[in-house]
Amino acid sequence: MRMVDIIAKKRDGKELSEEEIRWFVESYSSGEVPDYQASAFAMAIYFQDMTQKESAALTYAMAESGDQLDLSAIEGIKVDKHSTGGVGDKTTLIIGPIVAACGVPVAKMSGRGLGHTGGTIDKLESFRGFETEIPKEEFVNLVNEHKIAVAGQSGNLTPADKKLYALRDVTATVNSIPMIASSVMSKKIAAGADAIVLDVKAGSGAFMKEVEDAKRLAEAMVEIGQSLDRKTMAVISNMDQPLGRTVGNALEVKEAIETLQGDGPEDLHELSVKLSSYMLVAGGKADSLEQAEKMVLQVIKNGEALEKMKAFVENQHGDAAAVDNPDSLAAAEHRVEVKAKASGYVHGIEAEEIGVSAMLLGAGRATKDDVLDYSVGIELTKKIGDIVQKGDTIAIMHVNDQDSTESAEKISQAFTISEAAVEKPVLIYETVQ
Amino acid sequence: MRMVDIIAKKRDGKELSEEEIRWFVESYSSGEVPDYQASAFAMAIYFQDMTQKESAALTYAMAESGDQLDLSAIEGIKVDKHSTGGVGDKTTLIIGPIVAACGVPVAKMSGRGLGHTGGTIDKLESFRGFETEIPKEEFVNLVNEHKIAVAGQSGNLTPADKKLYALRDVTATVNSIPMIASSVMSKKIAAGADAIVLDVKAGSGAFMKEVEDAKRLAEAMVEIGQSLDRKTMAVISNMDQPLGRTVGNALEVKEAIETLQGDGPEDLHELSVKLSSYMLVAGGKADSLEQAEKMVLQVIKNGEALEKMKAFVENQHGDAAAVDNPDSLAAAEHRVEVKAKASGYVHGIEAEEIGVSAMLLGAGRATKDDVLDYSVGIELTKKIGDIVQKGDTIAIMHVNDQDSTESAEKISQAFTISEAAVEKPVLIYETVQ
Repeated sequence: MRMVDIIAKKRDGKELSEEEIRWFVESYSSGEVPDYQASAFAMAIYFQDMTQKESAALTYAMAESGDQLDLSAIEGIKVDKHSTGGVGDKTTLIIGPIVAACGVPVAKMSGRGLGHTGGTIDKLESFRGFETEIPKEEFVNLVNEHKIAVAGQSGNLTPADKKLYALRDVTATVNSIPMIASSVMSKKIAAGADAIVLDVKAGSGAFMKEVEDAKRLAEAMVEIGQSLDRKTMAVISNMDQPLGRTVGNALEVKEAIETLQGDGPEDLHELSVKLSSYMLVAGGKADSLEQAEKMVLQVIKNGEALEKMKAFVENQHGDAAAVDNPDSLAAAEHRVEVKAKASGYVHGIEAEEIGVSAMLLGAGRATKDDVLDYSVGIELTKKIGDIVQKGDTIAIMHVNDQDSTESAEKISQAFTISEAAVEKPVLIYETVQ
Repeated sequence: MRMVDIIAKKRDGKELSEEEIRWFVESYSSGEVPDYQASAFAMAIYFQDMTQKESAALTYAMAESGDQLDLSAIEGIKVDKHSTGGVGDKTTLIIGPIVAACGVPVAKMSGRGLGHTGGTIDKLESFRGFETEIPKEEFVNLVNEHKIAVAGQSGNLTPADKKLYALRDVTATVNSIPMIASSVMSKKIAAGADAIVLDVKAGSGAFMKEVEDAKRLAEAMVEIGQSLDRKTMAVISNMDQPLGRTVGNALEVKEAIETLQGDGPEDLHELSVKLSSYMLVAGGKADSLEQAEKMVLQVIKNGEALEKMKAFVENQHGDAAAVDNPDSLAAAEHRVEVKAKASGYVHGIEAEEIGVSAMLLGAGRATKDDVLDYSVGIELTKKIGDIVQKGDTIAIMHVNDQDSTESAEKISQAFTISEAAVEKPVLIYETVQ
């Protein structure tokens, strides 16, 4: 095979065979196909799209390009959840204990974050002593016994995807639905998922600004999952403002605990219940979404979800007492209020700007080597639709000795306030399965 | 500027500024912009096309990327001719002496060929002793005194185009009209042309198979030329079969001499007259095409064109006696006839196949280091529309000791013969100016 012929075939809108796609992934990984051919190919895909068969082949070939986790020693259907990324999204911390409490095994490989806040691993490390470097055997045992464990990513998963993604990033070919879908799905499949629940964000704070685009991405991923015999479903959720009220590691953990106690913010509660319910259905623990929702609300109400969180933190050597007493989590020294500059209704909160503000305070990493401050972050006291008077507190920055002037300015600019009344936005636009 | 932004802008169908295009050409030439960004950019151009302004900017920036010939010491309007390439195209050998005889300066930089037959320089070297390595001063003097000189390409013309072309060749991005047009025009402009006459080939033996595509290319080149203040016109001519009857260096020179004597094949005569006439108009020697054609036919009829050929060959130390006695040119030892396999009418002659057959005999170079045999080649005794009986000679191979079996087979296959009568094809489809 010659790469130039494969590029030309895609350029001309013809369907590539599984062999051609596999050959590309293998040859690009090995360096036989140079970057300049891969980038022209990516641009051709950008314009000509991929069929479901092509996307599935690309996903599978990338999943097979490196190590693949064998989780067959874990009993039950392993259901993984993936969010396309938003600001203030701490659902993993909530959903894990809920579905584990309902009997679905959560065997999560997670990463550290680069950006607004830390990743799930970073957030969990807000619990003093929390350990994520667990030997494979212990990880399997924990999941079998307690239905939940979270480990740091080890091994070399989907190197072809990493290489291709880095290339797409500098050649204006990131924004291609079949390539985004294949990238996400290859990682989930290499990480051993039997079933996958996707939370695809749409809105100003998400990669997909339009619901229609988010829906196309969701459909592409669901189709890939199904082609590869992984039960897959997707929820399209609103990211026109941060999810919940907090952005920052310990603040988000605290909010997750409140949500597990049934006292979380409405949007975070609603999305967590919905995603958990889909996971119960995907994991074969409920026959219908209605039945699943009942089970989810039950384990929140009777405290089993919170107990599962405690056991989970304790199993991984974290300070489980903090689950009962969240005030013992790292807390910042100062609270600095940000005030509304006008009266009216909150019309929009640029999630991206709030995220960057939190990062500037030390909640996230701008570069891989930055050290996180778990205690800092932002608490939003107003959300879209709320009425405000000029001078009202719209957000509280949790800071230590940092200069918070720039963050305050950014937060202030992130809020748009209109004279006309604004409705509360829809949280879940649609589900795809 | 960041290349990724320029790629994204083109990808999204927006018009790039002159500064952005110049920056790309300069940064790509210097190696600051890597191949993988240039190839993604080329693919984006493939899909999104370029405006006239963009193409002109690309052309000019590539022309300026290396050496540029200063032909200002040559009096008159320097008119260059360019053909997009076909099989059996020896028009440069005919047109040069004709327009020089009419007073238009021909200051031609030419190259050696890679492919079917040699380039113009190779063909001219069929004249024993012909020299093309001429010092600049002598070149200028020759043109001023005799109106014609042909020199081998020296210096580093349009390196950015060379680099980009090599990349396009391996990334399936050659076939893009604005990039082809800019590539051709940048070379002509760097070579010092004041005006340009283009012969854009269309048909099975040309790069552009369809007349419509050839027309779009012609229009793109004419627009670029005019944007850059070079009078530019284009003829779209038929390349469904080889031009004239011969393919091979000395054979083509002989045919060119016959055409200058007024005894050439009809198609070659017609195209040479038309292109020469446009060159006289572009060079300001005639006000109308009709007037120009009269002048051209006149210098053929009165022998001045042939005399000019003789002087030209002599000036460059070639054996000018061969112009009067073409049989003294290198001749192959054997003639091997190829016979018709069926009776009927010649319906098609795959020019590409005839070209490859000639190359296999030694008339062209498959690689840069191949040595040409000037004497070998193919003479077509039948052309499209001719009636043939099974067993008639359709072509004669001029060979020395080479095994000509493969070439004979290819030639035979290149001919399609139909039962129904076939009309002589149109030679010149259209002109663009």
